[in-house]
Parts: sequence; structure tokens; C-alpha cells
Amino acid sequence: MPATDQSERRITDRLRRLAAIPPSSEVVLGIGDDCAIYRPRGSAEDLLFTTDFFVEGTHFLRETHKAPDVARNALARSLSDIAAMGGAPRFCLVSLCTAKWTDQKWIDRFFDALLAQAAQYQTILAGGDLSHGDVVACDVMLCGGVPRGKALRRDGAKPGDAIYVSGLLGGSALGLATGKGKAWKRHLNPEPRLQLGSFVRADLRATSAIDISDGLSLDLRRVCIASGVGAEITDPPRFPGVTPDQALHGGEEYELIFTVPRRQRVPDHFEGLPLTRIGTIISSPRGEVIYKGSSLPPRGYDHFAQR
Amino acid sequence: MPATDQSERRITDRLRRLAAIPPSSEVVLGIGDDCAIYRPRGSAEDLLFTTDFFVEGTHFLRETHKAPDVARNALARSLSDIAAMGGAPRFCLVSLCTAKWTDQKWIDRFFDALLAQAAQYQTILAGGDLSHGDVVACDVMLCGGVPRGKALRRDGAKPGDAIYVSGLLGGSALGLATGKGKAWKRHLNPEPRLQLGSFVRADLRATSAIDISDGLSLDLRRVCIASGVGAEITDPPRFPGVTPDQALHGGEEYELIFTVPRRQRVPDHFEGLPLTRIGTIISSPRGEVIYKGSSLPPRGYDHFAQR
Repeated sequence: MPATDQSERRITDRLRRLAAIPPSSEVVLGIGDDCAIYRPRGSAEDLLFTTDFFVEGTHFLRETHKAPDVARNALARSLSDIAAMGGAPRFCLVSLCTAKWTDQKWIDRFFDALLAQAAQYQTILAGGDLSHGDVVACDVMLCGGVPRGKALRRDGAKPGDAIYVSGLLGGSALGLATGKGKAWKRHLNPEPRLQLGSFVRADLRATSAIDISDGLSLDLRRVCIASGVGAEITDPPRFPGVTPDQALHGGEEYELIFTVPRRQRVPDHFEGLPLTRIGTIISSPRGEVIYKGSSLPPRGYDHFAQR
Repeated sequence: MPATDQSERRITDRLRRLAAIPPSSEVVLGIGDDCAIYRPRGSAEDLLFTTDFFVEGTHFLRETHKAPDVARNALARSLSDIAAMGGAPRFCLVSLCTAKWTDQKWIDRFFDALLAQAAQYQTILAGGDLSHGDVVACDVMLCGGVPRGKALRRDGAKPGDAIYVSGLLGGSALGLATGKGKAWKRHLNPEPRLQLGSFVRADLRATSAIDISDGLSLDLRRVCIASGVGAEITDPPRFPGVTPDQALHGGEEYELIFTVPRRQRVPDHFEGLPLTRIGTIISSPRGEVIYKGSSLPPRGYDHFAQR
């Protein structure tokens, strides 16, 4: 498989082409954003749907991550997708494939942590599936709600828009590298930016948004490709002790990148969380991100590039 | 782990207790049936949600099942859950975890078969997730629609109701055992009973229904437990060459078990598919299934019992 996100993009591009959605369908947005959008007939609300795998050996390690860590991070990935589209979570389905090494206690602790985090974000556990295999895998499907036609998408950024990022980047990557300190805590306790997502959608007239799950360089590029634009950025704000590379490319941040019209006022902070302007959307070959005058390669985390 | 479905039931019973649903919630049915039910405000339709894992080494074997077999069976499991509640499929999300042995061609053939089957059942592929791990795993989330308040559930069977089953049972189990002939084809090409599910719901005033994914004995017992009743049955109709045990306990049938009020007329066939009365719902200790005068142990397929 080729490096970067080429392989994953080849599959999703192909599927988007093949999985045609009839114009009359209640599915108003399919493959290619953080969530699919479904518009039930007669409903004032659009429903957002996302699903995320969390797999032993790829997303977590048996020796490193305890059952509650696995549960919290698996759910956070999906919650963060809902946040990126400005939605509020409604319910989740959780599929858990257990392995020989996961005993009853592990399973109970997994679900206890999952239910605690779900309750914190007003999310109901409505169902799922239990299975068994050689490794542990967890797939979380989350449904969110957003006012009809108002979901934030990746494809609305326009040249001249200002690019913002929330929080301080690179902490999760640093934590995973060192396994200690505040960065490790940050890695283990992701905070999906649901309040921020709603604020950005409703109050900042954002033109696009995405969450940083695979790294700033890769996720910003996804916005650029979807919107048919480029981006020019400076160094993003860094978590203490983090290298510029970790801030640019580190994954599992669950902060939001969003773009707003150039004259839109954006506060320095939202509920204590820094909001920092890192650049501007430009007209440019599809998808290019310019950093300090050069094209920034998308080196963010891509599971398919690990082969 | 204890044998039979005790272990899985322990987990789901615990979760149902812990995952309380507030009365004001749009989630009107949570853990414990084939699908969860969500009622969007203002919508004339209830939405059904189900998710099913399909895991290498547990549900399929790398050497035995080709990519299209994996795709068709993974999707059929979820389609069958929608059929069991009398719904019509709307869209799916497909999470695929690939392994080192799945090359680009395997992935393309997987999705081509999945899309072909989805199209056959008017199901849109609206999204999903791609990941990578040591074994192949696929999780299919399916959303279906059903007229508001009309979904068939497991918990409505009443003493005196007649018990029916569709089709001829045991073919999938025989196919898996022999790997050849019509039974093998049957195993590889499951046919979710979506038209039948709608007919049973709308025209037969069914009081309960479930699909046979884990075997008649286990799945009928689930209806009995949910409804607080028992059942008395005779031999179900058998696929050619099948033993009585395979018909009673074989999984992955995707036929429907349903109950109707005692005076309800039920045709012998529905669109060429036999509908056979196999017994009667009785007042009995919770969940007991009586077969030829004795209690029938639920020996159906339970992943947790394989340890």
C-alpha cells in the first residue's frame, strides 16, 4: 500500500462514486465527511451518523491501555465527529468484539466507563453487538441531531476565509511517545468539543469544520480537498513540551479546525479553551497546504500507511 | 465463561439495567431487541437501528469465504434484523478493519458485492470507517424505517398465540458442515425476509417476531424471555438432508419466527416461501421451550459459548 492517506482516499473516492444517492433520498450527505446526514420526513432536525473502529494493536495496546481508556477513547472518536458538524449527540450503538484475554471484569469496566462518558455527553446507549475474536475491536456508531440544513461540513471553505484551531496541539502524540505526565493524561482523556462545535456553527457562521483525529496536516488537507481550495498556515499553538512536528502531524487531538468569513469576529477563548487563528484559505491547486512558504506533506496518522 | 447464551445475556441484562432511557427520550426502545427504535420529533416514521459484527475466525474463515461471501453475509445479518421488526431498510454504515492478507482487490470485491446486495434491498451505503488490524472484522450498522409505533418486537407474544416459522431450517448449518451442494449455496447466499417481515407486521397482526440468527431454540427462547411466556413446539420444517438437531439449533438461517393471535389466518406460503405452524405460546416459567414433552436446551450458536 502507498504511504500517506492515498490508499484510504482511493477506497473512499471509489465508494463515493459507486454509492450513488438518489436525489429523492432522505440521505442528504453520504460518504466523505465526518458524518452522514439523514433528514427524516417531517422532522425539524437532521440526524448525523458516524461510526469509528477502535482496534487492538492499531488504536490501543493491551499492555498500555486499560478497559476504561479503551472505552473512553472509542466513544470520544465518534463524539468528536458529531462536534465537528455542530451537532448534539443523541444515542450510540456499541459493537464489542472481545478476545481470550478480556475477562468478565474487563468487559464490565469497559461498559461502566463507556456509560459514564456517554452520560456526561447526554448520549444514550441504545444497542450494539457482542462478538468474540482473536483481538479486541470496538466499533461505536453515534447518532447526533442538528437543526435542519445547518450541519457544518468540510466542503464550504472559501478563499479569504480565516482558519482557526481550538486548544493546544500535539499533546496526545507527546503523551503516546512518553507515556507520562500531563501529555499522557491528555492522551487518555480526550475531550470532544461538542459545546464549541455548536457555538462555531450557530454563532460564528463557520463555513467549514473538521476535528483533528489524524493530525492537523492531514485533516486540514481534507477540508481543502472537499472545498476545492488550499490553505496557508503558520505554526499552530503547541501543548507544553511538544515539537512543531508533533503539533502539525499528531493525531487523536479531537480539537476542531474551522473556517469563518474574513470579517467574522472570533473570541480568543471559548469556555477557557483558546481559539487561535493559524492561517487563511487560498485559491490553490486542490488540497495544498502551504506552511512557511512550502507545501506541507500530509503526514498525519493514516492506518493504511502503517503497512 | 459459562456455556450457552448465559454470558452474553448477563452482559446485556446488566447494560439494559444501567443504560436507563429517560421517558422524554426519542429513543423508544433500547437494548434487548433486534433493533433499537428512535422516533424523530415530527416524523411519521420510527427509525430502526441495528449493528452486527462479522469477524474472521468467528463468523467466517479466510480460506473458506471469499470477499463477496463476507460482504453479503455481513450485510444480511443486519438486513435480517430490520426484517424481524417489519421495517424497510434505508441506509447503512460499514466499518471494515482489513488485515495484512487483504489486498486492494479483496477490498474492492468486498465493497462491490456489498453495494450490489445493498442496491437489491434499496439500501444506501452512507458512510463507515476504514481501519487495519491483525484480523479482518466488519461491522454493519443499518437504519430502517417502520410506520410510527408499528415495529414488531420480541416482547408481545401471549399464551395461546400460534408460533410460525418461514422456510426450511438447518440448511445453513448443513452447508457449513459439508461445504458443498445446495446447503452450501444456501449458507453463502442468505436472503433476509424483508417482504415477509412487512407482510407479517401489516397483514397478519403478529404479536412478536425475531429472525433466526443463532438457531431456532435460542432465538425462540429470546422471544419467550422478552414476552414472559413459554413455548410448546414440534419439529420445524427441514431443509433437505438436514438432521432434526441442525433444524432446531442451526444458526445463520435468517428465516423469521413470528407469533399471531390464535384465530389469525396465516397462508401456507408467502411469495413461494413456506410458512409453517410449529407450536403455541404457553404460560410457563420464563423462557421455557417445550419440545416433544421436554424442556429444549437453547443450544443455538452463541459466540461467547465457544471459549
